[in-house]
Amino acid sequence: MSEPTSPFHFEALHTCPDTGARAGRFHTPHGIVETPAFMPVGTRGTVKGIPPWELRELGSQMLLANTYHLHLRPGEDVVAELGGLHGFMGWDGPILTDSGGYQVFSLSEIRRIDEDGVSFKSVVDGDRIRLTPERAVEVQTKLGADVIMAFDHCPSNPLDRDEVETATRRTHDWLARCVRRHRELGGEERGQALFGIVQGGAFEELRLRSVEAITSHDLAGYAVGGVSVGEGRESMRRAVEVAAPALPAEKPRYLMGIGTPEDFLHAVGHGCDLFDCVTPTRHGRTHQAFTSYGRVNLRNAKWERDAEPLDPTCGCRTCTHFSRGYLRHLCKTGEMLAGILLSLHNLHYFNELLAEMRRQLAAGTFGAWSVKYGVRHFSSASPLLEVLPRVAKEKKSD
Amino acid sequence: MSEPTSPFHFEALHTCPDTGARAGRFHTPHGIVETPAFMPVGTRGTVKGIPPWELRELGSQMLLANTYHLHLRPGEDVVAELGGLHGFMGWDGPILTDSGGYQVFSLSEIRRIDEDGVSFKSVVDGDRIRLTPERAVEVQTKLGADVIMAFDHCPSNPLDRDEVETATRRTHDWLARCVRRHRELGGEERGQALFGIVQGGAFEELRLRSVEAITSHDLAGYAVGGVSVGEGRESMRRAVEVAAPALPAEKPRYLMGIGTPEDFLHAVGHGCDLFDCVTPTRHGRTHQAFTSYGRVNLRNAKWERDAEPLDPTCGCRTCTHFSRGYLRHLCKTGEMLAGILLSLHNLHYFNELLAEMRRQLAAGTFGAWSVKYGVRHFSSASPLLEVLPRVAKEKKSD
Repeated sequence: MSEPTSPFHFEALHTCPDTGARAGRFHTPHGIVETPAFMPVGTRGTVKGIPPWELRELGSQMLLANTYHLHLRPGEDVVAELGGLHGFMGWDGPILTDSGGYQVFSLSEIRRIDEDGVSFKSVVDGDRIRLTPERAVEVQTKLGADVIMAFDHCPSNPLDRDEVETATRRTHDWLARCVRRHRELGGEERGQALFGIVQGGAFEELRLRSVEAITSHDLAGYAVGGVSVGEGRESMRRAVEVAAPALPAEKPRYLMGIGTPEDFLHAVGHGCDLFDCVTPTRHGRTHQAFTSYGRVNLRNAKWERDAEPLDPTCGCRTCTHFSRGYLRHLCKTGEMLAGILLSLHNLHYFNELLAEMRRQLAAGTFGAWSVKYGVRHFSSASPLLEVLPRVAKEKKSD
Repeated sequence: MSEPTSPFHFEALHTCPDTGARAGRFHTPHGIVETPAFMPVGTRGTVKGIPPWELRELGSQMLLANTYHLHLRPGEDVVAELGGLHGFMGWDGPILTDSGGYQVFSLSEIRRIDEDGVSFKSVVDGDRIRLTPERAVEVQTKLGADVIMAFDHCPSNPLDRDEVETATRRTHDWLARCVRRHRELGGEERGQALFGIVQGGAFEELRLRSVEAITSHDLAGYAVGGVSVGEGRESMRRAVEVAAPALPAEKPRYLMGIGTPEDFLHAVGHGCDLFDCVTPTRHGRTHQAFTSYGRVNLRNAKWERDAEPLDPTCGCRTCTHFSRGYLRHLCKTGEMLAGILLSLHNLHYFNELLAEMRRQLAAGTFGAWSVKYGVRHFSSASPLLEVLPRVAKEKKSD
């Protein structure tokens, strides 16, 4: 027990013999997260349109909030005065904050980037803002989430070897500074764990080198970053296949900013435990739903007089209370409730998919199920099947 | 028992000896409404931003939906196919639909108005739409609410004697036609009650003549209309004071489109039982809250670091989960949750005010309480006190 007073630890309870998938329990100061688990994104301290009691009802266990947005408005000092993120958001379960790195590099007008950090222009008032690894840890310390993320350099083009190499090396240097600042501020014993982030773009060798560098720090968990930008599905999947299994089995693995049901199946099959993505709520607000019969656009005229639930196999409140025709009416008339009810359903769908994976893992049937699920939910010619864990694919050919 | 098979009846359980206020129970096919009661407005078949399970949790008993909006989109045939309003909205409690008259006269570009009905232009597609008393009953029959409203002519200027006289006479003629069509379609025995509407603008004599004409039909309830347009508070209050007590005591009295806490106190004191208004949700979406210490704008900078609940005396989920500072943050960043949480709070405030009136009526203390409530919540020079029921005012001068 190298850190006897840390409130964080991970138990891998059930590991699939056919794939790299595992079910586990991640212990945090605000409760246990049963993994694999999906974290809804509460960018500005709110999962858009969904109150926290509804998230609890939906089976959400851990939420994510964005340091970049909260640093700009209302500022970490205000959040701290209002009870830290848990009090602020009215959520007493575990919370994770990203470091702001991803948003700085993807959303901002960057003024300067150097070895020390990044200067950018606030989208709120045009002010010059400076983030460094130390500052990102300090801001997150004030926000007060259970898990905080290292400040990383997420390369904009994962196929540009020069850019990726620079960004990856910088990410490693910055992690060392984050670790130092995190320890100075009290470390895990104070109730906040720091996760490091693997970069390396689409380059296997850089991904593995990054895993080595990041795991040279003994942290409560590790993340795979930079997979939701750039060249899309294939390079993301390769990066996950290379990096995730190389991370220590006794720590949670968090795949950042991913994704879709197909992505979860693939990533869990390669040993990932935690996920976050805006997909369920963003799709919900644009009237798209994830269902057992595929993705659905609720604005479509064919639903006008359809009295069936959105997904007859679904037990969420949207599906147990309303018809497709009613949901279409809400979408067509621009009612707030459309986005709310579709976000609820999508979040339930994501949570239920991951809960089903946990059940299959506990029952020792994940390998066969993952193949069947893929066959049932995606076309048999789906590229998903090509990237499913090796043994699972062999089983399929039995 | 002139209508032995009607599922509708009203019991006046407690009548205040000092004022005209009474607590009662209105029986409908979808349950009992404890009166006085506030009905949230679900214009297009949704109370904006609030799912039905949340309305139930807030203590809402009966909802209102708008025939005008639902006739335009999605159309009454679609609503009927999707289970009628109860199935459509996912609300198994009582529902009332207005007749569309108010919206036709206030929102539409009217093409023609004559003794037979009104032609207007659809705001959705510009189509010519025709509503007559018979048609309004037919549309509402398909929508399937528990209570449907007579098609009335609501005068645009309650102070224009000629216009008001014409509109009032027309309202009486149209009621006779609504009653006939309602009986032909099965009447109350089929599970829908028809309420008549008193018009008469700001003219006491016309109001009383209208009460006489409307109550010449034996209906399950009567409404006072035309009080939310025109010259505002004073003429509205006089109209209520004249018309409401003149309506039969053994039937529910519904004051249409009103209003504010002050309005409820005044109207209940003059014997009104049912209310509807968009105030709680519309104010909520524009970041205004009703509280025990007055009306509050949540965008105000003074709330930025305020860790107190919005209303420390309130038990709603908004006040038990969040701080004023958090609510202000949601308002300032334009988050959907701002309007949702403030609408929840306002609806709870309205429901709780009417529940408190019911408790005071049951305890026989309404008269004294209404004066104290007025003194506590409004300035002692409030015009409210001038129009409170006579006996209550006398008590105050004791």
